Amino acid sequence: MSKGIISKDEDYSQWFNELVIKADLAEYSPVRGCMIIKPYGYSIWEKMQTVLDKMFKDTGHSNAYFPLFIPKSFFSKEASHVDGFAKECAVVTHYRLKNDGEGNIIVDEEAKLEEELIVRPTSETIIWNTYKGWIQSYRDLPILVNQWANVVRWEMRTRLFLRTSEFLWQEGHTAHATSEEAIAEAEQMLEVYADFVENWLAVPVVKGRKTPSERFAGALDTYCIEALMQDGKALQAGTSHFLGQNFAKAFDVKFSDKENKQDYVWATSWGVSTRLMGALIMSHSDDAGLVLPPKLAPIQVVVVPIYKHQEELDNIRNYVNSLSAELKAKGISIKFDDRDTQRPGFKFAEYELKGVPLRVAIGSRDMQNGTVELARRDTKTKETTTQEGLAAKIEGLLEEIQQNIFDKAFKFREENITKVDDYEEFKRLLDEKPGFIAAHWDGTPETEQRIKDETKATIRCIPLNNPQEEGKCILTGRPSKERVLFARAY
Amino acid sequence: MSKGIISKDEDYSQWFNELVIKADLAEYSPVRGCMIIKPYGYSIWEKMQTVLDKMFKDTGHSNAYFPLFIPKSFFSKEASHVDGFAKECAVVTHYRLKNDGEGNIIVDEEAKLEEELIVRPTSETIIWNTYKGWIQSYRDLPILVNQWANVVRWEMRTRLFLRTSEFLWQEGHTAHATSEEAIAEAEQMLEVYADFVENWLAVPVVKGRKTPSERFAGALDTYCIEALMQDGKALQAGTSHFLGQNFAKAFDVKFSDKENKQDYVWATSWGVSTRLMGALIMSHSDDAGLVLPPKLAPIQVVVVPIYKHQEELDNIRNYVNSLSAELKAKGISIKFDDRDTQRPGFKFAEYELKGVPLRVAIGSRDMQNGTVELARRDTKTKETTTQEGLAAKIEGLLEEIQQNIFDKAFKFREENITKVDDYEEFKRLLDEKPGFIAAHWDGTPETEQRIKDETKATIRCIPLNNPQEEGKCILTGRPSKERVLFARAY
Repeated sequence: MSKGIISKDEDYSQWFNELVIKADLAEYSPVRGCMIIKPYGYSIWEKMQTVLDKMFKDTGHSNAYFPLFIPKSFFSKEASHVDGFAKECAVVTHYRLKNDGEGNIIVDEEAKLEEELIVRPTSETIIWNTYKGWIQSYRDLPILVNQWANVVRWEMRTRLFLRTSEFLWQEGHTAHATSEEAIAEAEQMLEVYADFVENWLAVPVVKGRKTPSERFAGALDTYCIEALMQDGKALQAGTSHFLGQNFAKAFDVKFSDKENKQDYVWATSWGVSTRLMGALIMSHSDDAGLVLPPKLAPIQVVVVPIYKHQEELDNIRNYVNSLSAELKAKGISIKFDDRDTQRPGFKFAEYELKGVPLRVAIGSRDMQNGTVELARRDTKTKETTTQEGLAAKIEGLLEEIQQNIFDKAFKFREENITKVDDYEEFKRLLDEKPGFIAAHWDGTPETEQRIKDETKATIRCIPLNNPQEEGKCILTGRPSKERVLFARAY
Repeated sequence: MSKGIISKDEDYSQWFNELVIKADLAEYSPVRGCMIIKPYGYSIWEKMQTVLDKMFKDTGHSNAYFPLFIPKSFFSKEASHVDGFAKECAVVTHYRLKNDGEGNIIVDEEAKLEEELIVRPTSETIIWNTYKGWIQSYRDLPILVNQWANVVRWEMRTRLFLRTSEFLWQEGHTAHATSEEAIAEAEQMLEVYADFVENWLAVPVVKGRKTPSERFAGALDTYCIEALMQDGKALQAGTSHFLGQNFAKAFDVKFSDKENKQDYVWATSWGVSTRLMGALIMSHSDDAGLVLPPKLAPIQVVVVPIYKHQEELDNIRNYVNSLSAELKAKGISIKFDDRDTQRPGFKFAEYELKGVPLRVAIGSRDMQNGTVELARRDTKTKETTTQEGLAAKIEGLLEEIQQNIFDKAFKFREENITKVDDYEEFKRLLDEKPGFIAAHWDGTPETEQRIKDETKATIRCIPLNNPQEEGKCILTGRPSKERVLFARAY
């Protein structure tokens, strides 16, 4: 126990929950499986949105907005799609409440919808129904649209950020004249996601393809990025789907090419969600609280004054004002916590819990000596340094911290990818030292399912540019040409 | 008729619909009353969001996110609130679909929710239920939170942007220790809205208070900004509510003050929505299409080359590249439309329709003479000007256009506020020269209702700092101390 959070070695799952709640990131709502994202948590999500949105626009995409509700009939037009989502759909059946005459508010049965509406779990169907009106000719292609939205998937077992009935996400939906172009788009967006997650969240990822049974409902190919959490479980951090002509056929979306020949349009969709918050938290944090990479930290530097008399505080404040101006000019966010209701030690613990990358403590002796005490959240190291040149030093340190957090997670990930050729060893490892296991598989969904049933491990992905090697399936002994990555996953 | 849009004098309502659709702003979806906001329309909304979000943060607010669904029981806790919204609520009753065995997808009756969920029409109830957990002491106050979200109000008669079953908005929800502070907050946010609408949308507004019968369901006082559209109908562009202790009492949210005395918390809420898009379009546009104020135009300057041979185009392109660099350095967005599939005249009409503030046309003779043709969308004037100093000239012109658009709307508004003291004249004016009518009213809801029933005009607001004068109610002749603003409204 430390600062009221259980140790992650004691109970990783409980540690995560307590951390999310005590660091003011999010909390459960009274609505089953839905969460409230608190201002501190939301400000991290906003930073993610801003960066991603710019990346999408830099690759030629525009934002648009499609309806929250999808008519039930649309939803059933693509067969595997409805199979994939039907079991977790929130359904709107009525559009009015009324007073029952005895003071109770009840659903007005006379206001029943002719056709039920599904709260979108994803928007392929409503969007492809719309694209039918937007696309006639090759001149209308490509369509490169993204939507920031809330979606609902009625989950039975929920966890804050990782699996909630309502979540926030972005969903890109693009339309192309050729299969090649659509595949290139799906691959490009996977690269965008990998770049973002590694360079902003400081979380290393494996880029790969899903096996057919793990694909998105309606996709011909699903690309994914997979990250490894500190408990050795994998987390899918983003997916990009090549949808082929499935949705174009379901919604009859054709275009005429330059030779005036008609063909169905080729599609992709791709998304990341507030689940990334879970990946961020679980990759770096410790028993003292959050560890945030500086590039996504809402507060990058916090200054805590240590003083007895008001004039000491005024003196410190003067100095902090000039430091603030220097840091803000560099685009670095700084908070001066001059609350007189809390002691410095309390504040130290609070900013540790909230993952602020750098803490500056300044006392009266520091002011006399022209020094400050600088503490790093990632390494938990402290040093006394001069006030002169402090802004430049902080700028350099923030970059160093960002890199260090990534390096640490990368080293952990590398240490936890194990090649295994024996099924007993495979099972033992999953229990004793969980992580990614690179093993041979015979390529059949039956074997994949049996391994999943017996071990709870799934094939996370077939890595891109996977080395080809002869081998035997870990379960059946049948021949295999490459290893795939197994893990237990969130 | 012009460019395929009906004249606004012929049918204002039809003109608005055609304009929204042909300018690629939005379209209806197959879901009753829900709209699709297309990329061009959404990019204007995004600009609005960015500016407003900064204004909210500059006044101390943070963003957060609360659930889409509200338990039916919450909704009924504040009596006037449920009365205000019960008639237009989308209700979720089930959480699963299934195959009926004959290939049809139907609602799974076994997956019925124990308590129905309401899709939020506004979030006071779920938020005040949450604030109960956040507030114990005066130290926890104020809470200054905003949410960007979609909301649903099941409207029977819908219009793109103006009244849709689902719309996008922001809703601020603040909690305070004193009544005075909450009122000051509500008034501050009204000022923020007025500032935004006048200085960015270039739409002049009257700031005022609603009469008791026009207040938000659950508010003690509703402040509003009211704008006048070109057809003389008013449009409520934003509201800010002083909620008193109503929601705190409904959800039992108390705090202890410095003397450790318990009291209920004071509240405000305030919002603007995609309705602002309607106000923007209807305030300035004409029969040729949109007129956008430069500060919100997704494309501020468009360049159309006029050429016969490729080398002429290359020559023009060289010049445009350097102009672009200069404009981008000034933060001005420019588009070079070098499509060879459309003629210049077609492009001119298209950018007129889309409301691009400035059009630059460049031909080969211009390149020889060092000139360009510059056309303003707002005044429809053209001039030939030198390439030298063009970027600076454009910068100045965009400011001038922004001001001119506002001035024109302001002049129209001023010409259409009429003082009337006779009921017959009041009715005649509403039909013949609609606009704001400043008239005396006896202050009773009965008179207000009768005037509404007889004329369809409502009291839009009691202006802030309203001049006090003795008069007689236009309907009943009873004494009155001030004029209020009547209009037919959207």
